[in-house]
Amino acid sequence: MNSSEFRRRGKEMVDFVADYLEGIEGRQVYPDVEPGYLRPLIPTTAPEEPDTFEDILNDVEKIIMPGVTHWHNPYFFAYFPTANSYPALLADILCGAIGCIGFSWAASPACTELETVMMDWLGKMLKLPEAFLAGQVGEGGGVIQGSASEATLVALLAARTKVVRRLQAASPGLTQGAIMEKLVAYSSDQAHSSVERAGLIGGVKIKAIPSDGKFAMRASALQEALERDKAEGLIPFFVVATLGTTSCCSFDNLLEVGPICTKEDVWLHIDAAYAGSSFICPEFRHLLNGVEFADSFNFNPHKWLLVNFDCSAMWVKKRTDLIGAFKLDPLYLKHGHQDSGTPGSLLSAMFWFCFHQSCISAGSQEEGLITDYRHWQLPLGRRFRSLKMWFVFRMYGVKGLQAYIRKHVRLAHEFEHLVHQDPRFEICAEVTLGLVCFRLKGSNKLNEDLLERINSAKKIHLVPCHLRDKFVLRLAICARTVESAHVRQAWKHIQQLATDVLRAEKD
Amino acid sequence: MNSSEFRRRGKEMVDFVADYLEGIEGRQVYPDVEPGYLRPLIPTTAPEEPDTFEDILNDVEKIIMPGVTHWHNPYFFAYFPTANSYPALLADILCGAIGCIGFSWAASPACTELETVMMDWLGKMLKLPEAFLAGQVGEGGGVIQGSASEATLVALLAARTKVVRRLQAASPGLTQGAIMEKLVAYSSDQAHSSVERAGLIGGVKIKAIPSDGKFAMRASALQEALERDKAEGLIPFFVVATLGTTSCCSFDNLLEVGPICTKEDVWLHIDAAYAGSSFICPEFRHLLNGVEFADSFNFNPHKWLLVNFDCSAMWVKKRTDLIGAFKLDPLYLKHGHQDSGTPGSLLSAMFWFCFHQSCISAGSQEEGLITDYRHWQLPLGRRFRSLKMWFVFRMYGVKGLQAYIRKHVRLAHEFEHLVHQDPRFEICAEVTLGLVCFRLKGSNKLNEDLLERINSAKKIHLVPCHLRDKFVLRLAICARTVESAHVRQAWKHIQQLATDVLRAEKD
Repeated sequence: MNSSEFRRRGKEMVDFVADYLEGIEGRQVYPDVEPGYLRPLIPTTAPEEPDTFEDILNDVEKIIMPGVTHWHNPYFFAYFPTANSYPALLADILCGAIGCIGFSWAASPACTELETVMMDWLGKMLKLPEAFLAGQVGEGGGVIQGSASEATLVALLAARTKVVRRLQAASPGLTQGAIMEKLVAYSSDQAHSSVERAGLIGGVKIKAIPSDGKFAMRASALQEALERDKAEGLIPFFVVATLGTTSCCSFDNLLEVGPICTKEDVWLHIDAAYAGSSFICPEFRHLLNGVEFADSFNFNPHKWLLVNFDCSAMWVKKRTDLIGAFKLDPLYLKHGHQDSGTPGSLLSAMFWFCFHQSCISAGSQEEGLITDYRHWQLPLGRRFRSLKMWFVFRMYGVKGLQAYIRKHVRLAHEFEHLVHQDPRFEICAEVTLGLVCFRLKGSNKLNEDLLERINSAKKIHLVPCHLRDKFVLRLAICARTVESAHVRQAWKHIQQLATDVLRAEKD
Repeated sequence: MNSSEFRRRGKEMVDFVADYLEGIEGRQVYPDVEPGYLRPLIPTTAPEEPDTFEDILNDVEKIIMPGVTHWHNPYFFAYFPTANSYPALLADILCGAIGCIGFSWAASPACTELETVMMDWLGKMLKLPEAFLAGQVGEGGGVIQGSASEATLVALLAARTKVVRRLQAASPGLTQGAIMEKLVAYSSDQAHSSVERAGLIGGVKIKAIPSDGKFAMRASALQEALERDKAEGLIPFFVVATLGTTSCCSFDNLLEVGPICTKEDVWLHIDAAYAGSSFICPEFRHLLNGVEFADSFNFNPHKWLLVNFDCSAMWVKKRTDLIGAFKLDPLYLKHGHQDSGTPGSLLSAMFWFCFHQSCISAGSQEEGLITDYRHWQLPLGRRFRSLKMWFVFRMYGVKGLQAYIRKHVRLAHEFEHLVHQDPRFEICAEVTLGLVCFRLKGSNKLNEDLLERINSAKKIHLVPCHLRDKFVLRLAICARTVESAHVRQAWKHIQQLATDVLRAEKD
């Protein structure tokens, strides 16, 4: 395909996409297909000779669309939102065309520098403490990760490296393994499973702190766990506080948890994957109070800030903590020397990076001028993702983004209000942002049956959660185009199915 | 921005992109900007009110382009190629619009199922052993990772979990920490630094096996290291063999290394990040012989197979090994019970996934019908990346992809031939694919000066590497549009600068 055919096909694709998004309400939100549906519909091997673009575009409608869960259908209320906006789509086209890999400053200076500045813009929108911003001379700064799970893992690894080095400096005899066996990280029992996963990957214990009646982590429970573990000779080193939990959008008490982490010299990471976007609104910013106690903070503009996936925004107060975690461990190197007989030889493959950037940047990291983002993340390669932030922030403006958040919160409260008016139902957790947790008063079985009917009818799409021993339905305001009419329609539908379930129960 | 404005702006962006790629040869391959150039050019905060699209597109040319390293300029010969093709750009537009998050089968069945089938298509193109394919009933299968670094880490974690469980099953008293302290992984001293990084992240030792005269890992050196470490009570568990090293595109000897790994019951992971794409050509497939000994295999279609970043293709023989590594560790859980007082409570946040998919898929994984790719990777979220593979494979056809690989290899040999004809230069490693390692006969200083002049002139862009104690220049055939004329022009330029350097040395 040459550029003139791309001009033609690209414009057809733009129209295809516009048609899809304009007409998405007309598509069934959740597909009818059964597992394994797709394989029989396409050849078993790639074609030897090229197919035509027409054939492919037809197959998209024939083969792909019937198997798509339409996350941007206004009747999609499952999980949490994932962003989808036209400005982000435009920026991603450009990102693909430039197609640079921004693992270092020199690999594409604009890719690195726009990211640093966009993360400062976003940090200022959230009124993050100065310490988290890169600015011209800051020691902190932001980076775009692929997902909140990666941000949590990166923070845990940085904290692990920091504590291991501190303890080894104090008692040089200690092995990393001996230390790691004693390390303990903590999060609320409402924290996302990716926190536990980070612990498994990092090879450290993760303990769940029982949350309070509002599903929040509080000082008492955390302090108790810390004391017990220290008494047992364990080494607390990392706490994840969640702002806006996955299950019910509850908020850990930062103003209680933060000071404890500072006192105990434990790394505090804040995961605000979903809720973080709302902090650009003054009326929700108080939910972030206490962030000043954190070492790292993360949320996902790709959830609720109209920047398409992937764009997970992470800030640290000391960028050297992150970089340190992924730079080579001197102890390990000593080991390499002893055993491989080829001193530092593993580094040779890295040399063409080092020569090209690290050696420069190593010297100038402090000045905050040169950033090599590969030291801030798990993968080496990275796309030019800050273009999406730049386009979205500029084409919506801060006011436009705030209005978008407020609309979703308003719709959630509208749904909450409707639920309150039906005595058969109960609200199961405080509605703060765009998520409503509700259930039929009665057994879990009853609510499982209701959800079963809802998701079989496929007029709307919901997923459940467990709050303590209760089976609960979650309605999350997701789509960019969802309006009051969709919410009211969804509620009427739920009420109807509830009536059926209750009748069926009587029989 | 509404859909009708998107139709208009999207088409403008398509033309902008086509203009950029048509005219890229006219842009200086490496930018003139100094570190920190961008910040002063844009506001310090996001605008309150929206900017216009025109302003933004103008700023792309004014602010972004001057800071871009143009990876797709035909005079870009640095690093390794990163893919950029029109079919992939078209697919990515669609991917962004559908905007589903494919962490589970139900989250978008088409997203998961097309990926499984595309990975089978690609596996067949490479003639991978049947065991790596998912098919209808296979125990293996493929997954798209973000990068080869992630694939290496995922493989190491899977291997670590497997060996820990095996040893704990044998002697239940053993703690994970006690085992991890003894675990050792191996790779060639030419392996990419991401292998060492995976070891640091996974908390295990990584040892560098001295490569032979052709920079390949051989049986003798590996066996020797294994024996020595076992004698010291260490536990070898993981070997990374590299096919196409970053520094000089050398190939570890799979047919020697493979059987050793099998005999020693050590997980063998193959990293063919760059070279893997060439294995679709029968004449290069022999480079992959021995893959049958591997547990996991990875290469990057986003490097050399015209599928834009990110698309790192990873296959495993036993998908349960991967899934097992990221499912919850029973030992840990027992721990969680004892201490948190809320048994399994950390799982509650995960429940709405489990309820929705895992519980189904857990039962049917064996049937290979339902795949929840979140268990195969580090992040939770994932884009609909298989669309890029589908579009590229169909619009090029296997023959078109093979022709593309062959052209790049032909150009590399053409450059090699030119170097051979100039007695001032030497070739430093065998030219097998699209990379030529060369240098001026003489001191490292001389070659550093030459590279310095090359990259200051900015007519072409190269990066160096170290081969043993030698400073070497790498010329990688990168751009999709590079032709013989560009390669000859680059060589004339290098010869001229070499003459200058040698003259300067005399004075």
